[in-house]
Amino acid sequence: MAAITLSTTAAKMPQVGFGLWKVPTSICADTVYNAIKSGYRLFDGAQDYGNEKEAGEGVRRAISDGLVKREELFITSKLWNTFHSKEHVLRMTKKSLDDWGLSYFDLWLIHFPIAQKYVDPAERYPPNLLYDVEKNTMEFEDVSIQETWTEMEKAVELGYAKNIGVSNFQGALLLDLLRYAKIPPAVLQVEHHPYLTQEPLIQLAKKKGIAVTAYSSFGPQSFLELAHPAAQKVGLLLESDLVTKIATAHGKTTAQVLLRWATQRGLAVIPKSNNPGRLAENLNHTDFDLTEDELKSISALNVGLRFNNPADWPGEIYIFA
Amino acid sequence: MAAITLSTTAAKMPQVGFGLWKVPTSICADTVYNAIKSGYRLFDGAQDYGNEKEAGEGVRRAISDGLVKREELFITSKLWNTFHSKEHVLRMTKKSLDDWGLSYFDLWLIHFPIAQKYVDPAERYPPNLLYDVEKNTMEFEDVSIQETWTEMEKAVELGYAKNIGVSNFQGALLLDLLRYAKIPPAVLQVEHHPYLTQEPLIQLAKKKGIAVTAYSSFGPQSFLELAHPAAQKVGLLLESDLVTKIATAHGKTTAQVLLRWATQRGLAVIPKSNNPGRLAENLNHTDFDLTEDELKSISALNVGLRFNNPADWPGEIYIFA
Repeated sequence: MAAITLSTTAAKMPQVGFGLWKVPTSICADTVYNAIKSGYRLFDGAQDYGNEKEAGEGVRRAISDGLVKREELFITSKLWNTFHSKEHVLRMTKKSLDDWGLSYFDLWLIHFPIAQKYVDPAERYPPNLLYDVEKNTMEFEDVSIQETWTEMEKAVELGYAKNIGVSNFQGALLLDLLRYAKIPPAVLQVEHHPYLTQEPLIQLAKKKGIAVTAYSSFGPQSFLELAHPAAQKVGLLLESDLVTKIATAHGKTTAQVLLRWATQRGLAVIPKSNNPGRLAENLNHTDFDLTEDELKSISALNVGLRFNNPADWPGEIYIFA
Repeated sequence: MAAITLSTTAAKMPQVGFGLWKVPTSICADTVYNAIKSGYRLFDGAQDYGNEKEAGEGVRRAISDGLVKREELFITSKLWNTFHSKEHVLRMTKKSLDDWGLSYFDLWLIHFPIAQKYVDPAERYPPNLLYDVEKNTMEFEDVSIQETWTEMEKAVELGYAKNIGVSNFQGALLLDLLRYAKIPPAVLQVEHHPYLTQEPLIQLAKKKGIAVTAYSSFGPQSFLELAHPAAQKVGLLLESDLVTKIATAHGKTTAQVLLRWATQRGLAVIPKSNNPGRLAENLNHTDFDLTEDELKSISALNVGLRFNNPADWPGEIYIFA
């Protein structure tokens, strides 16, 4: 399987993984188990997804059934906003590992450059977009990214994580992180699809030897079930005339074309599907190449349209301003 | 004169000032003197502009001629990229004050969130975009924004600056700064014109009580003499059909309409002109109001076009990615 060699540890990160966002707990263990059976080796989870225990159950069952060994898997998870302070990072890393039933993550990411007020897991876990409903505002904590990153580095020293990285970071903040990081981020995970190509950010990551994982590769698709206004208004990339034309020319699905547009340009992808057929199609999409013109014409769909923007959340957090 | 009250110290910052970028040293003292005579009270300089001594000469002459008192002026300058480390910030703040012949700045800004390698002023000052010509790359220094900001705060404690702020910062980096700042930034200075409206960033600053100063209010105009490719390609805002139509309707110049579009929305502006007539026009542009529709129609020219982008410099610094 195609893999990206991380510049920090030379670890091999599978270029195609399975994204666990919005995988319901009721089917998560089976979904992970079946995905492993289908050949998936990378699983992209997060504390916020609320399904780490179930994902871990799927992993353990696959290992005990002899489908795969732990070291053949690449497990990613993400620290939630409420656990950024030095009192909580390592403790909560450990909690996530326990939930998964793992001794280490292959990749551990800061989910967002947002520090929200601590919420005791005994009270509510995951705390999601916790905010004061009456005030219609979130509660934040003055914890710098440097404080959080220093703890992430300790997670590596303690063996909790083989690699660390960040998600949803802008260029200027990433550059600042690189100035004080003892362990530079191995991976940057960002929203990336033809409506939001972010060439300069991808370029920056490339220059700095940071691998990029694209999330929401199908654009509006993932946000329809959340009744996202822009996602409901804009045309589906999976049904776009251009993408359909290219897919037909190659005898592929539009999903495969959208994924190939990313992986051929060196990015990793983490599509999700609850459908076994599509799950296999997504994984096995790297056996063809788009032409330079096709890559460019898809990139030209860019309109800078971001679906996952905390500025739209109650706290109006302008991390992408 | 219209002023913005800074949320940090309640200092009054004139809403219209004079920008010193690209004012030649040969005419800078006279230009500043005449601008004061015309009523300008805010001067926006920078170490990088290379004309602080001459600007200071104009200021001193105006004061000694009784045109104005120091406390009636609002003098801004900016720390250059090569002086970000804790060894240099205060020392170089003092140098800039000495160049101006002042005992304090009203506002002292971090010019860019970029830390370049130190260059001894005895060797080359200002060092401008110093880079290794052979390698076609800039040399950087691993100095975090937090280290630089801590020194900026000391400049306030030492009385070198009444207020401090930042320029060319993105949202996520500004939010991080706010987490560790003991003295929050009073002002954010950014490129802002109808081709680059940056509403979310302006919104963020507003929410955080940070005043915004717009630079390059006329868009491509300032960049034509630098042979900037995009500036040469795009239509001049000063000659735009829409802006001309609105200017005619109000009996104003297009420059005045572009400035009013910013000031009416609460921003400060710092236009430059070497022409005495336009200099007065720019200053006295606040005696009329645009309609809501006019404001919106000008804002609708936004195409996210940035002219002052370090990604275009030799070091390819993606601070706006």
